[in-house]
Amino acid sequence: MENRQIRLVERPNGIPQPHHFALVTEPLLPLGDGQMLVRNHFLSVDPAQRGWANSEGNYSAPVPLNAPMRALAVGEIIESRTPEFQQGEFVYGWFGWQSYCVATPETVLRRVAPSPLPLSANLSLLGINGLTAYLAFNRLGDPKPGNHVLVSTAAGSVGSFVGQLARLAGCRAVGLTSSAEKMKIARERYGYEDMIDYREEANLPAAVQRACPEGNDIFFDNTGGFIADAAIRSLRLFGRVVQCGTAANASWSPAPTGPRVEREVLTRRLRWSGFVVFDHIAEFPEAAAALTQLALRKDIVFDEEILQGLENAPAALTMLYAGANRGKLMISLID
Amino acid sequence: MENRQIRLVERPNGIPQPHHFALVTEPLLPLGDGQMLVRNHFLSVDPAQRGWANSEGNYSAPVPLNAPMRALAVGEIIESRTPEFQQGEFVYGWFGWQSYCVATPETVLRRVAPSPLPLSANLSLLGINGLTAYLAFNRLGDPKPGNHVLVSTAAGSVGSFVGQLARLAGCRAVGLTSSAEKMKIARERYGYEDMIDYREEANLPAAVQRACPEGNDIFFDNTGGFIADAAIRSLRLFGRVVQCGTAANASWSPAPTGPRVEREVLTRRLRWSGFVVFDHIAEFPEAAAALTQLALRKDIVFDEEILQGLENAPAALTMLYAGANRGKLMISLID
Repeated sequence: MENRQIRLVERPNGIPQPHHFALVTEPLLPLGDGQMLVRNHFLSVDPAQRGWANSEGNYSAPVPLNAPMRALAVGEIIESRTPEFQQGEFVYGWFGWQSYCVATPETVLRRVAPSPLPLSANLSLLGINGLTAYLAFNRLGDPKPGNHVLVSTAAGSVGSFVGQLARLAGCRAVGLTSSAEKMKIARERYGYEDMIDYREEANLPAAVQRACPEGNDIFFDNTGGFIADAAIRSLRLFGRVVQCGTAANASWSPAPTGPRVEREVLTRRLRWSGFVVFDHIAEFPEAAAALTQLALRKDIVFDEEILQGLENAPAALTMLYAGANRGKLMISLID
Repeated sequence: MENRQIRLVERPNGIPQPHHFALVTEPLLPLGDGQMLVRNHFLSVDPAQRGWANSEGNYSAPVPLNAPMRALAVGEIIESRTPEFQQGEFVYGWFGWQSYCVATPETVLRRVAPSPLPLSANLSLLGINGLTAYLAFNRLGDPKPGNHVLVSTAAGSVGSFVGQLARLAGCRAVGLTSSAEKMKIARERYGYEDMIDYREEANLPAAVQRACPEGNDIFFDNTGGFIADAAIRSLRLFGRVVQCGTAANASWSPAPTGPRVEREVLTRRLRWSGFVVFDHIAEFPEAAAALTQLALRKDIVFDEEILQGLENAPAALTMLYAGANRGKLMISLID
């Protein structure tokens, strides 16, 4: 049996381009003890892959050259030599951009519970985007009915869920994004009561004050930078800042400067927390179950853009960074 | 019966000086319903009084001109027309720089539980300094045995307790202060295993790394500014920053700039919280009881400098800002 892989063959400096990758076919070797063979159905295309392909890795070592590109995927176990997993089970984990993965139990992030949702949902609503939104917003944001919530990159892969979760929690959500089209989608589909186009506002603090006249209790931040400066100053007493990303600054070495926050934290008694979803793997099943119920009740929507065929994965990553996708971008390997 | 008061008669711009105050004697009027008469035994002299005397008040309205200077005090109820408090009880609260206070139940922060500790301890160990250290360190710092703790203004009125509480919690505490003499006291009396004189260090991050080679789990901060910049970058994964003060910057309007922290919060998964002790009045009795037990077992020491006589209160405040006191500064009205 043969395995097709997208390997990283050249280390990018910045956004990975198709020429950094190569499609390679190799024979699959027999499984060893403790291994299982996963046939990938859907492959995830994620912004974090830029960091994994570059040598600047923050949370994890860079992908070795000539290894299959690191990626999350969902697939079926078609052979198992580990007692923990059975043939026929579906799993979500670090299976890479390839047709098959010789996986171990450590490679699996979550078993896929049978549900009427499409299998692809395990990479979108039930993947790291939905899990991040659910766990970061609920655990660190600590939402209360009536709370006011401000979200940066509100139309993005995480923000699209945060707005909906905020509305479901009885909160009023306002989002920041970068185009009229994204503002429209965020208002119509993602639960936001008002939106701010930060590229169009000469005075962002004033725009935040206009959209959030009563201030905010939660700032769910994927950007940092000048958006965070304005948002933090809109917070009310005992406000929570959930730091999920820092996309506003391309480089943090050395750290860029900005207005100091110590006094904001003190006088408003803020609680500012950093969130990395992989710290919470033990909570994935519970979060996925809750999100599944919300989706089945039509209380939450999720948007996906699915491209067909392994060979399209590198171009999909470029497309992602160009912002050309609408919804969670993934690759289907199933005809 | 006559009441002697230190009144604020001129609004200072910066540190209050003796000429901003006047000693005035006025007759005590009979109590109304719901009132009680407290005879002050000890008056507190606190850095926060600067903010209360100026018109820049952050947490509370400024002291009105020609009113008695706002101050914490401990005293005895010598007459009560409120059912909640009885004559003969001792209480801690907002009784001002005066011999007697016509108080109401809202003026009281805490009843003084009978104990072998001197009554003055209610303004030091059991006053806002000790309560701040205890509640902020334990509630927001979340100390675990083996944790590494870094404290700014370690020899100060709060830091002197944080070092001891850290040691009692099985942590290793390192402190920052501004003189060799304070370093010595902090090491010998306040539980610190190592000290850094931030005025003597040209490279503070390197000094922190030297004193804290394994990094830190908790940064207890009273200063903000460049000390916080170095300290935050010494934190380990899941570190906690307890923001209790921002003394490093005299003015926060507009906010001074500094290196951005969003990426530190995210990648280290920090939890950065602001602490104001008056949010926690309901927890004062429990905290005071715990601190009393520690003091009675000689597990915690507290230093006091007590001046005699109401007329010395204004000069004591000036002395406090000159750093000339050794231990919690207070005024005794009891011969």
